[in-house]
Amino acid sequence: MKALVYNGPRDVAVKTVPDARIERPTDALVQIVVTNICGSDLHMYEGRTDMETGRVLGHENLGRVIAVGSAVDRVKQGDWVCLPFNIGCGFCENCERGLTGFCLTCNPGSAGAAYGFADMGPYEGGQAELLRVPYADFNCLVLPPDAEQKQLDYVMLSDIWPTGWHATELAGLKPGESIVIYGAGPVGLMAAYSAMVKGAAQVIVVDRHPDRLKLVEQIGAIPVDDSKTDPVEQVLKLTDGVGAHRGCECVGYQCHDHHGHEASNLTMNRLVASVRPTGGLGVVGVFVPQDPGSQDKLQQRGQIAFDMGTFWFKGQFMRTGQANVKAYNRYLMNLIHAGRAQPSFLVSHTLKLDQAPDAYRHFDERDAGWTKVVLRPAA
Amino acid sequence: MKALVYNGPRDVAVKTVPDARIERPTDALVQIVVTNICGSDLHMYEGRTDMETGRVLGHENLGRVIAVGSAVDRVKQGDWVCLPFNIGCGFCENCERGLTGFCLTCNPGSAGAAYGFADMGPYEGGQAELLRVPYADFNCLVLPPDAEQKQLDYVMLSDIWPTGWHATELAGLKPGESIVIYGAGPVGLMAAYSAMVKGAAQVIVVDRHPDRLKLVEQIGAIPVDDSKTDPVEQVLKLTDGVGAHRGCECVGYQCHDHHGHEASNLTMNRLVASVRPTGGLGVVGVFVPQDPGSQDKLQQRGQIAFDMGTFWFKGQFMRTGQANVKAYNRYLMNLIHAGRAQPSFLVSHTLKLDQAPDAYRHFDERDAGWTKVVLRPAA
Amino acid sequence: MKALVYNGPRDVAVKTVPDARIERPTDALVQIVVTNICGSDLHMYEGRTDMETGRVLGHENLGRVIAVGSAVDRVKQGDWVCLPFNIGCGFCENCERGLTGFCLTCNPGSAGAAYGFADMGPYEGGQAELLRVPYADFNCLVLPPDAEQKQLDYVMLSDIWPTGWHATELAGLKPGESIVIYGAGPVGLMAAYSAMVKGAAQVIVVDRHPDRLKLVEQIGAIPVDDSKTDPVEQVLKLTDGVGAHRGCECVGYQCHDHHGHEASNLTMNRLVASVRPTGGLGVVGVFVPQDPGSQDKLQQRGQIAFDMGTFWFKGQFMRTGQANVKAYNRYLMNLIHAGRAQPSFLVSHTLKLDQAPDAYRHFDERDAGWTKVVLRPAA
Amino acid sequence: MKALVYNGPRDVAVKTVPDARIERPTDALVQIVVTNICGSDLHMYEGRTDMETGRVLGHENLGRVIAVGSAVDRVKQGDWVCLPFNIGCGFCENCERGLTGFCLTCNPGSAGAAYGFADMGPYEGGQAELLRVPYADFNCLVLPPDAEQKQLDYVMLSDIWPTGWHATELAGLKPGESIVIYGAGPVGLMAAYSAMVKGAAQVIVVDRHPDRLKLVEQIGAIPVDDSKTDPVEQVLKLTDGVGAHRGCECVGYQCHDHHGHEASNLTMNRLVASVRPTGGLGVVGVFVPQDPGSQDKLQQRGQIAFDMGTFWFKGQFMRTGQANVKAYNRYLMNLIHAGRAQPSFLVSHTLKLDQAPDAYRHFDERDAGWTKVVLRPAA
Repeated sequence: MKALVYNGPRDVAVKTVPDARIERPTDALVQIVVTNICGSDLHMYEGRTDMETGRVLGHENLGRVIAVGSAVDRVKQGDWVCLPFNIGCGFCENCERGLTGFCLTCNPGSAGAAYGFADMGPYEGGQAELLRVPYADFNCLVLPPDAEQKQLDYVMLSDIWPTGWHATELAGLKPGESIVIYGAGPVGLMAAYSAMVKGAAQVIVVDRHPDRLKLVEQIGAIPVDDSKTDPVEQVLKLTDGVGAHRGCECVGYQCHDHHGHEASNLTMNRLVASVRPTGGLGVVGVFVPQDPGSQDKLQQRGQIAFDMGTFWFKGQFMRTGQANVKAYNRYLMNLIHAGRAQPSFLVSHTLKLDQAPDAYRHFDERDAGWTKVVLRPAA
Repeated sequence: MKALVYNGPRDVAVKTVPDARIERPTDALVQIVVTNICGSDLHMYEGRTDMETGRVLGHENLGRVIAVGSAVDRVKQGDWVCLPFNIGCGFCENCERGLTGFCLTCNPGSAGAAYGFADMGPYEGGQAELLRVPYADFNCLVLPPDAEQKQLDYVMLSDIWPTGWHATELAGLKPGESIVIYGAGPVGLMAAYSAMVKGAAQVIVVDRHPDRLKLVEQIGAIPVDDSKTDPVEQVLKLTDGVGAHRGCECVGYQCHDHHGHEASNLTMNRLVASVRPTGGLGVVGVFVPQDPGSQDKLQQRGQIAFDMGTFWFKGQFMRTGQANVKAYNRYLMNLIHAGRAQPSFLVSHTLKLDQAPDAYRHFDERDAGWTKVVLRPAA
Repeated sequence: MKALVYNGPRDVAVKTVPDARIERPTDALVQIVVTNICGSDLHMYEGRTDMETGRVLGHENLGRVIAVGSAVDRVKQGDWVCLPFNIGCGFCENCERGLTGFCLTCNPGSAGAAYGFADMGPYEGGQAELLRVPYADFNCLVLPPDAEQKQLDYVMLSDIWPTGWHATELAGLKPGESIVIYGAGPVGLMAAYSAMVKGAAQVIVVDRHPDRLKLVEQIGAIPVDDSKTDPVEQVLKLTDGVGAHRGCECVGYQCHDHHGHEASNLTMNRLVASVRPTGGLGVVGVFVPQDPGSQDKLQQRGQIAFDMGTFWFKGQFMRTGQANVKAYNRYLMNLIHAGRAQPSFLVSHTLKLDQAPDAYRHFDERDAGWTKVVLRPAA
Repeated sequence: MKALVYNGPRDVAVKTVPDARIERPTDALVQIVVTNICGSDLHMYEGRTDMETGRVLGHENLGRVIAVGSAVDRVKQGDWVCLPFNIGCGFCENCERGLTGFCLTCNPGSAGAAYGFADMGPYEGGQAELLRVPYADFNCLVLPPDAEQKQLDYVMLSDIWPTGWHATELAGLKPGESIVIYGAGPVGLMAAYSAMVKGAAQVIVVDRHPDRLKLVEQIGAIPVDDSKTDPVEQVLKLTDGVGAHRGCECVGYQCHDHHGHEASNLTMNRLVASVRPTGGLGVVGVFVPQDPGSQDKLQQRGQIAFDMGTFWFKGQFMRTGQANVKAYNRYLMNLIHAGRAQPSFLVSHTLKLDQAPDAYRHFDERDAGWTKVVLRPAA
């Protein structure tokens, strides 16, 4: 089959690799219809992780089931399915509580597995014609009859919408509250979109890319350009001086100030300052336990200089980590199916698999207008 | 001052009564700008409660503070305020947990007080020029600068929107779920509107009055006419045969079948049948501990023939009671202020206080188009 | 293998039946070490359900794994396991939210499956030498090294302790609150024990059997004998006249007044009266959707004459249904393992399988001292 | 009246000061019976805050009401009352949600007020004969008839028990889970005691003072001496290598390694390492927004070098801040009243007010056996 293979830093190529296949009786084999490039794919693309060369990337996948193992009871050949990026077993202590992003079975010795991802188990990705799905009955979200027609919406259920939604859940957002979101990349935009769907009163999004800020406005949120203004001051001004009820970190450890200097504590400390006492912070931007390539000493060992004193004095809370996609995907699917949400507004490019290397390049360079790329391996 | 006084069954009149005034150091005196007629006013109007003659009705009130007692620290003369229909002390065991609908102080020997209401304490209502507000610092919701302009929206924060919202909270509604609401009177409509604001995927509303069903459709919900179809079957059909995730009772003990026979268990048992296993029911329609005037033996002693077996077998839950308005009004105010909600869409009539007796008559007869009446005592 | 077989009303016998075996790749085969007789076995024993003759009873099971199917990854031969009485698939909409008592897969067309139980699917029970366990990785609770030694404690994790615990969860019990429990049968006693473990301030238990009331006292709870006193009055007296914060129904539809007349609404209405405004009721006693054999007209169609008016006026809530055993069993296991709980205090008899018919007779007749019977099929 | 006055760093004295009195109609005047010295009093005593000289210390107070203002409705002269250390108004946005530790009224411009505390408003403390209690109806916990007899238990409701309890709430502790607590000072001990009351399966407490570790053992928890062993390794060993479910920080920014070097990030990073993925951290140890006197550059500006990467990767959460005492004190009072808890086990010394300066000295020097000092101003 054809698949997008990681060759090394900033080097990916479409190659012919052995077909994915049923390996365990609990597996399904899925023919990929659409698969996205994710911001976290860039971490691997840029060579800043210990991704093994030769592996297939891609963890935002949707397709049709073409075969199932002998122990698969629910999922049937022909089903349209969307796959959560995290792979769960369904029966470990974490999965049974719904914490499927921290499965203790699928990536032994760690907590959490994913398709085509550094340090998340041996699973190949879905930027390919075929994908092996472990524990298929647990991991497949079977889509309703409008699956084909709304595939660009449904594919967002694999990662990006649940991750944005998770940010707002972690922050504890309730209807009628205000929320500030740092970062208007795809995840930040989905967090803002989620906040709108949930009935937030005020959704403020901080970024500096004009095309992203335009999308912020388009969904009814309030854009703040941190290259032109102090975002903390802006948030305070917009919230009667007290700060937002909630805040989301959708940038991660590679955050830069607007002069381009990496400052891994920048968004976290701005969040603490932007959110009111007793408020909550949801952190879905990735922070890593070590980052030997960084020039910052703290960052090398995975630390940030965190405003703990202010955070404590304000009695805030912070919740973090990967989205447990299965906690949300069924409900977000319902919203798409009922016509109450269209997350595909994010999609800027729909390309063939062969165009993937080019797309990675543009996306990595944050070229204007490359918001979200969807690949079609079957096209 | 002029006030609407209860003279007896189906007999109310605008009279001159002694001015409301500051009685305790914790009181405020409010000049009423707008005050609604509520469906529960009709219970008293119809003479089916033990409301004392000579009392002033009206518990959905908004106005301006014209005086405060010596112990009032927060509320100032000139503030525009909306008053929750339930009166709380702020310091009893229930109020301190936010259960302000069940205050143990303001109506000694019972749990819960209100303005101008049978069995809810000695407080006069606000269908009058002036209103005395006890524990003013606790009970007044001080409105933002657009209070005057959006007064028809903000007045809905006194009861009807929080009560509709409460129905969906009691039912446990989460975004992406389906919900069925029995009753499209003002509270049912507000429940449906709340469900839309909160991101429900499917909002189904059962009623039989064409004007109400039209409003249901107008806010994006799905109307079901139970005079033309079996509503339980309809709900099952709309939910792939499994029933809605959640259900709300917004009718109460006086519910009728479509032939006009009172059947106090009708909506409750239909809810049990319409909602899926593990689903939740929120009951804000009023049920009373005794109803001597009823022709039904069970109803006389406040009982209904409830489908306990099916309810238990399905593992459903049911939560009930008056809305704790203060738990929601601040957040719903934020939504109005931010332009994200306009509950005034309900208002069918804006009248002078003198027109109140007429309005009661039309509203009591469910005359077409009399959805919600707002009175202006100062006009 | 030897197994206890249901022959018809009040007729069970130990017979030789075909060996249980692995039928699906996701199955495990368990050699039963201990298996309890449950109060709900009596519903079937008494012939009041549509249990098929020839089936094996027993849903409170603990044993050792002697074989696993090809798709079983976690559970190993030799593991000591305790089996939740409800059988879940792990991947349906309910199981994935932890509502394993309402599995949509294992008993198609209904919600919820169990071993050896009327209307809960085709699964044989464990009052036998061997038990087939479906979806073994999901359903087996693997026990710690002290499993053999503490087997009488751990077997209580199959049903009775989680069910008692569930009652207190459904009621919303928090530390420092008061709770009243109607029924001091094994489930009621386990509810009381759970409330003690959770830090309730006052645990009041209503029953009329002296041996049970003695056990109530023994665990530090307050016994109330409803054959000698009005239990509602007693509860009010013990709670400063306001009622308990929470209440549990651990009796079910066959509740009797102390003259021996069945009155299916008795405990429910007493609960409503015994619990304070805003309080919560947890109902784990079984109520059935129809009961053709009853002499009460309402009860025949699964209804009770419920004090809805008082319940609503007090703003109470009620949550019901089978315990989702997997939501609790791991945590309760930890308490046993750490020596902080010994639910085996309940056990009155430890018998051989051959003695089961005799034990059913005594238990059914509520013979004094027959609190809880454990069978040892291997003995 | 006599009162303990702060004269400057490590200098307190009992002096005669003007009597506390009713100043506002909502005040009560309380004659102090018992008042504790708190660990946070030492922050002021040591001169590391901007406490004004001449002020009266003491925020853990219990006494009898001797007068009330004209607007006080609930509290009566003669009532025995325990006062939460934080002073709330009862009607601001935070108080009405139960976040009384972050009152927006009582300390304008900040969030949170307290008696006799730096930066927490102008209120005098209760290490004195008399105390003025603002918003008395809201702030007084009226004690049951056994108040005098159990005064050493009830006085712990003012701060230290609710604060320890809060630590376990913030960490999200549920029955049957394991928890590790860093710090066995009074707050850490109360956190451990709370975890025991709540039904934790394993309570591990890390400290290095033998007298404190002995108390840990006495209440049934597991002591770990971090001067003799690596506490993270110990916790992992005690939890099958995965870490505790929950963790509490009960030390604060002045934490030292066992060589006596201050290392403000030490306990936080150890907590992250000691707690399992998806686990929760409750932080009640005080961290300050700036600490100019520190030798550590980060600490000077209120920052710590926090293991954000590991924290995020593990998907943990952290909740912080002062206890909202009123959220818990009524329920903990019930436990004392019912004889189910005796937090007075902590008390090592019961002294006259005149002995307070001496007691401060011993307590500040962590002299062996000076666990908790109670003063009796009336003695």
